[in-house]
Amino acid sequence: MSVRTPDPNSGWLSDDELAVIRKRLPLLYVEAVPVRVDGLGIITEVGLLLRANSSGEMTRSIVSGRVMFGETLRDALFRHLEKDLGPMAFPLLPASPLPCHVAEYFPLPGISAYTDERQHAVSMVYVVPVTGSCDPRQDALEISWLTPQEAVSPSVLGEMVGGRAALLKAALASAGVLT
Amino acid sequence: MSVRTPDPNSGWLSDDELAVIRKRLPLLYVEAVPVRVDGLGIITEVGLLLRANSSGEMTRSIVSGRVMFGETLRDALFRHLEKDLGPMAFPLLPASPLPCHVAEYFPLPGISAYTDERQHAVSMVYVVPVTGSCDPRQDALEISWLTPQEAVSPSVLGEMVGGRAALLKAALASAGVLT
Amino acid sequence: MSVRTPDPNSGWLSDDELAVIRKRLPLLYVEAVPVRVDGLGIITEVGLLLRANSSGEMTRSIVSGRVMFGETLRDALFRHLEKDLGPMAFPLLPASPLPCHVAEYFPLPGISAYTDERQHAVSMVYVVPVTGSCDPRQDALEISWLTPQEAVSPSVLGEMVGGRAALLKAALASAGVLT
Amino acid sequence: MSVRTPDPNSGWLSDDELAVIRKRLPLLYVEAVPVRVDGLGIITEVGLLLRANSSGEMTRSIVSGRVMFGETLRDALFRHLEKDLGPMAFPLLPASPLPCHVAEYFPLPGISAYTDERQHAVSMVYVVPVTGSCDPRQDALEISWLTPQEAVSPSVLGEMVGGRAALLKAALASAGVLT
Repeated sequence: MSVRTPDPNSGWLSDDELAVIRKRLPLLYVEAVPVRVDGLGIITEVGLLLRANSSGEMTRSIVSGRVMFGETLRDALFRHLEKDLGPMAFPLLPASPLPCHVAEYFPLPGISAYTDERQHAVSMVYVVPVTGSCDPRQDALEISWLTPQEAVSPSVLGEMVGGRAALLKAALASAGVLT
Repeated sequence: MSVRTPDPNSGWLSDDELAVIRKRLPLLYVEAVPVRVDGLGIITEVGLLLRANSSGEMTRSIVSGRVMFGETLRDALFRHLEKDLGPMAFPLLPASPLPCHVAEYFPLPGISAYTDERQHAVSMVYVVPVTGSCDPRQDALEISWLTPQEAVSPSVLGEMVGGRAALLKAALASAGVLT
Repeated sequence: MSVRTPDPNSGWLSDDELAVIRKRLPLLYVEAVPVRVDGLGIITEVGLLLRANSSGEMTRSIVSGRVMFGETLRDALFRHLEKDLGPMAFPLLPASPLPCHVAEYFPLPGISAYTDERQHAVSMVYVVPVTGSCDPRQDALEISWLTPQEAVSPSVLGEMVGGRAALLKAALASAGVLT
Repeated sequence: MSVRTPDPNSGWLSDDELAVIRKRLPLLYVEAVPVRVDGLGIITEVGLLLRANSSGEMTRSIVSGRVMFGETLRDALFRHLEKDLGPMAFPLLPASPLPCHVAEYFPLPGISAYTDERQHAVSMVYVVPVTGSCDPRQDALEISWLTPQEAVSPSVLGEMVGGRAALLKAALASAGVLT
């Protein structure tokens, strides 16, 4: 079986299959806001990923990805953290799978604060302290560490798309960062 | 177009399509524990549905159902509450889509506390006060209103399947019902 | 015993006693953001109280008050809602005493986002739907019902003191109102 | 100034002062359930302290203590964790001061699930992962590390007083430990 042929019993979908399903079902995602905390647990820095989107624009985003068939939310969260931040990030995952925020993305605007033109996706959002060094992989060009105040400044929020500015503020508010 | 032919652009899936997708993707569900509260908001009664399962056994369950393509969690919650409790239940939906508990159902036991032999499903769980009269429809035979203490008694919990005994206790614990 | 003589065994304190204790202990408060919700539970309006503060300035505030000795958080919340909104407000209290936000007020600024020059107070904050008609009593002059967007506009937030602008945004964020 | 004479401007109270205040005001506490987590954040062990109570009985308890005047919840939590677990426990404090559970202790039973014959106390409860080595100090004789299942077994819960069995179950439920 070649690398390009997915196991038909696995949760991995071909691009064609995914394209069909995306028009029929809400997809389940996990998203994580990476943070650094001090010895008392206070958030000192927020990590934002710099990516080029499909039209070549630079945007800031957070760790994000789909939950696979058979995979727990926790495993999906760990997998996407490792994929986006590298193997030495040493994230501290939450004890509970309960998210701090739920973001509902729809193809068309106006239904919620979140849009994703590709699909209807429901994302479980977590704030995750990382204790190691981050080395973005895949499509992210770099990770920037900003103070919480910088992270929620209009200029930074303006570089986020699909409603992720609202998501970032809500996630940080749940972690005690007031704006 | 006959009633049995779903709109190919809708989020409604044929049984065959659903059977295929159930082996490839986690499905998104909402579940609700119906409760009655007193004037101070304290839970006085918990509503459990009596259903016959596929092998004819009677089991107790809660309001539960799939989230459709294009549907918000809130709309799905309202639709399933109406489907299971009737149009006069007058549920008080939560202001936030954040669930009180997340239940991850897997086909095989041992991965989490929850099992569903049909599928991998991730369920957003809510505790929902109802203020009207409930008239179970569809496959539920009746709804029983129990005190919180009765609801978490071993004999009642023993009539719940797929881990819903743990779900009920966790949902009620989040609402201040201690056991 | 005259009306002005508090029962020495009660939790009610004379002004002198309270003045002493305020310099020695954190006081426990409850605060509530009154809201109106639609049939699906979505917040449609936020109720803000107009009060004159000690220097005669008009400020906007929320329902707030101290927890007495022997009183549950729920009873304190109900008592202050009735005191500030009148007996016909019919608030829907949360099932759980877990607040949506905790505000720590200190006499000096810089320790947290919240200040109260009179005391160190720790406030359990709740978002409370009200279903009846509100008739502010005591020191509140009136209650204004604003849309969530109006409530978090800079001009309205600018009329709140002691950090309550941050409190209002955090409480509404916990209830799914994104800004 | 002798060691026994507290600074009259400090938040530290003499035993006599505390005795008086305990009959007039609810006191604010923090409590922490110490846990050990694995690399995916799953709770593997729960730390329970063994103490002799005032009548000489051995009881199991958790980290607990009063919040002082001028002290943040976070600082109080850190101080009591260090006092009860020693300076090398390296606790990971939560980013938010929002507790996972609120326990209301009253002198008389029947008002809530929690009793404390000395006082009316309202306790903010947290689940706190510790990463270092624990060396109980003060009045605790030792700390036992139990699996979550052992910790919520009837025999262990039976050694907890004042309702802390219910507290432990509620706190662990909030962290995804189902029973």
